[in-house]
Amino acid sequence: MSLPFTWAPKFDPTSDEPLRIDAALIADWLVAFLRDECVRRRKIDRAVLGLSGGVDSAVVAYLCARAFGPERVLALRMPYKISSRESLDHAQLVVDALGIQDRTVEITDMVDGYVCAHEPDMSATRLGNVCARSRMIVLFDMSAKIGGLPIGTGNKSERLFGYFTWHADDSPPINPLGDLFKTQVWQLARHLGVPDVIVEKPATADLIKGQTDEGDFGITYYRADRILHFLVRGYGYDKLIEMGFPKEDVDLVWRKVDGTHWKRRLPTVAMLSNSAIGEYYLRPVDY
Amino acid sequence: MSLPFTWAPKFDPTSDEPLRIDAALIADWLVAFLRDECVRRRKIDRAVLGLSGGVDSAVVAYLCARAFGPERVLALRMPYKISSRESLDHAQLVVDALGIQDRTVEITDMVDGYVCAHEPDMSATRLGNVCARSRMIVLFDMSAKIGGLPIGTGNKSERLFGYFTWHADDSPPINPLGDLFKTQVWQLARHLGVPDVIVEKPATADLIKGQTDEGDFGITYYRADRILHFLVRGYGYDKLIEMGFPKEDVDLVWRKVDGTHWKRRLPTVAMLSNSAIGEYYLRPVDY
Repeated sequence: MSLPFTWAPKFDPTSDEPLRIDAALIADWLVAFLRDECVRRRKIDRAVLGLSGGVDSAVVAYLCARAFGPERVLALRMPYKISSRESLDHAQLVVDALGIQDRTVEITDMVDGYVCAHEPDMSATRLGNVCARSRMIVLFDMSAKIGGLPIGTGNKSERLFGYFTWHADDSPPINPLGDLFKTQVWQLARHLGVPDVIVEKPATADLIKGQTDEGDFGITYYRADRILHFLVRGYGYDKLIEMGFPKEDVDLVWRKVDGTHWKRRLPTVAMLSNSAIGEYYLRPVDY
Repeated sequence: MSLPFTWAPKFDPTSDEPLRIDAALIADWLVAFLRDECVRRRKIDRAVLGLSGGVDSAVVAYLCARAFGPERVLALRMPYKISSRESLDHAQLVVDALGIQDRTVEITDMVDGYVCAHEPDMSATRLGNVCARSRMIVLFDMSAKIGGLPIGTGNKSERLFGYFTWHADDSPPINPLGDLFKTQVWQLARHLGVPDVIVEKPATADLIKGQTDEGDFGITYYRADRILHFLVRGYGYDKLIEMGFPKEDVDLVWRKVDGTHWKRRLPTVAMLSNSAIGEYYLRPVDY
């Protein structure tokens, strides 16, 4: 986390040093962040999250259980008919370990109420997006039901790669993991005691059978995260090559970040006044 | 639009002067905006919008037909079983007047696949949010299908009041109306030739039977917009009272804007590094 900003000429591009975290400190800080944002600022002391069986949502469940108390955390499992059985089982391990509330809401009828009825031939990508957004609907609705806040689970690697469905994975108002690379989430997971089977399995969006993140990317998280770390600190393309990162890796990472800036921004609104929301209307005023 | 920034002591709080627009100029500029953002920047020359039968989406349909040509605009009608028949008829008037493409996708099976199966007793508000978000899913999916861009229709009044469903009405990547108050949208609608019956009927989200916007607000758009106009230019509470606006109106508007800032922002992400997305990671760099 604390690599000096000036580039050291003897940098080893295979070293994991820049991505190493003090997991205990970060866990404590994130628990404080959740309490501060939800309880103190928003007066909401219940959290709702989608528990996929993967490591990101497992880590968030552990953090929420510490921040709010397990009885005030609701974990939702939202399988579609092709979701893997293993994912549900891994989610159960987390529920059992923490003693949090849980509920399973199958999204199949909801999704197929659109897909089968109107667009039966859609691609796997489109279906994946419909599933991800349907889960958003359930997450927000269950939060409204119990007076809780939806908590996000997207990490920095996937957010920079744009590897998420807009208005789905990125939608919850509070996200404790969004500034941690995937390889850092793994370190945090180990510290928190997330079951090994969850930390060690290949990451997958589980939207398409057999899918893995690293297969979709064409690069491992370990290789990608080190490049992303320097890239978002402002290191230019040539600098990254000069540091010894393989050109094909830098090209791939660069392209993914460069092509997905729109997914990390609010929509573009035509400005017609000197008080456009979020534009000129940014100055400090008394409301 | 061009009221001088310093407050004139002889201001008449019932005057519509500050909200009057040059509708012809604004229409031209918005057509140019749509072409620039969609075609030139994003290389996408097809637009998809949800056509509700209301004035906002009708105006956007007229603008899109001019910007892209009617054959490259797809208007979606997405009724739920309790949606009014009149809404569908009014949408048809727009389709017929412009010669744009249209398709009706009933969202009832999709919504009820969640609601009836899992949460049959939900409140009208929750049901309204599920419907609005289901429409977002269809809008984005149909856009993906035809290689078009979803175009937003939210106006400045409802955006400032927070009178929309998060990740639903506010979700499309491009929105031409977001900096126009509702009373300005009406002026633009007249200029564009939107049918009178659409411009003159009471605005409604049509999520609940008999619902109207102004009934939900407790204030008319005409009264609210004039206060909003000054409020977002930085006029303080006391100043607004001093200008002659009724205290109960100012209180109501103030409360709505003040309680909904979160809906006009990206989610809150815990910052853990000096390269947090959208925070420190805002400086101009070469990607």
